[in-house]
Amino acid sequence: MLTIYGFPISSCTKRVALILHEKLVPFRLVTVGPQDFKSPEHIKRQPFGQIPVLYDDDYHLYESRAIARYINAKHADKGTPNLAPLADDHHGVGKFEMACSIEYSQFAPLVDRLMKEVIFQELRQQPVDEAVRASLKASLEAKFDVYNNILKEQDYLAGDNVSLADLFHLPECDLIVHKFDRDIIESREHVAKWWKNLSDRASWLAVKDGVQSTPSS
Amino acid sequence: MLTIYGFPISSCTKRVALILHEKLVPFRLVTVGPQDFKSPEHIKRQPFGQIPVLYDDDYHLYESRAIARYINAKHADKGTPNLAPLADDHHGVGKFEMACSIEYSQFAPLVDRLMKEVIFQELRQQPVDEAVRASLKASLEAKFDVYNNILKEQDYLAGDNVSLADLFHLPECDLIVHKFDRDIIESREHVAKWWKNLSDRASWLAVKDGVQSTPSS
Repeated sequence: MLTIYGFPISSCTKRVALILHEKLVPFRLVTVGPQDFKSPEHIKRQPFGQIPVLYDDDYHLYESRAIARYINAKHADKGTPNLAPLADDHHGVGKFEMACSIEYSQFAPLVDRLMKEVIFQELRQQPVDEAVRASLKASLEAKFDVYNNILKEQDYLAGDNVSLADLFHLPECDLIVHKFDRDIIESREHVAKWWKNLSDRASWLAVKDGVQSTPSS
Repeated sequence: MLTIYGFPISSCTKRVALILHEKLVPFRLVTVGPQDFKSPEHIKRQPFGQIPVLYDDDYHLYESRAIARYINAKHADKGTPNLAPLADDHHGVGKFEMACSIEYSQFAPLVDRLMKEVIFQELRQQPVDEAVRASLKASLEAKFDVYNNILKEQDYLAGDNVSLADLFHLPECDLIVHKFDRDIIESREHVAKWWKNLSDRASWLAVKDGVQSTPSS
């Protein structure tokens, strides 16, 4: 049985659990809350003091996208097929890696700022700098204008099939839709269709309100 | 002949050229300067208005790390071998992806802030916020403390062999050493040795002062 150390409502914990559900791999969630991220016990698991962490028997890994890629490689024959191209499909590998890198470089830093400067501020009932809010909205809109053009030509970011690159966006897009401004996504025809296709997936429905251990585990 | 659209002293252009040198793949550099990043002509190549961009005949790709992974996959039999593990080495894939993700999530955002808030300010002879400088230094030191512990156990970030994950750091570490504070890297025994091994590579010596088309091209 795989064990994930994480926090049920964290985006990165959801990213890993989502892929485990896609690949039909059961897992046990051990909750590590924000107050314990920097504890000596957790630093032994994750030296940067973050979540999630995977243990697969003696094998140990952190960084959510890396865990997802490991799960996908190891369980290639289970669940949703072809979430990443085969290594000898060089053009496919390039397009897939480009889509993964766009998520990481264009999109994740903005969502990180959104979390710190808007969502957490609102949770703490602290004032949000309206200039920051407007600037973040404008930046996200500019990125999604490009996404909309990409998704006009193909159903998913790496081509016509869903891949890890699309799924990696799900926790982040969910924050934008439910905690910031749903129009950024829903007003753009092709982005809206992509988001609906992704957010209707059984894997996402299983984790979106909080990750739990797989029922069988 | 491969064509790279980029800017000779940009970190991301250097990242791609470095891997092309490692894999002994000749290329032609077409310079696109900062004044042209958002031009209509360049937006057709890179819709986010950034560099570098690769053209390999009709095939077209952007995002430096994705280009590097494509080059490595397509030219597996050339130049430095084993810059990424084979797909069926699941444990190797996981450790490699973890190292790549650490570079992207822990390290690149700090270097991005360093560029914007310190290096560019100094280039423009604008004042640098000393609190920002100190906070960036402390954050980089904390990350390199973890790197030092990792590199105490193994020579490179994904194991005992050099990989793309190490090479991806080269342009960023060069900025830290030459434009910010070399002690952050050089005062940490295992990080210093890792940096020396990487920065002595012929591939880096060929691109560090500015990328040029391969002599034969």
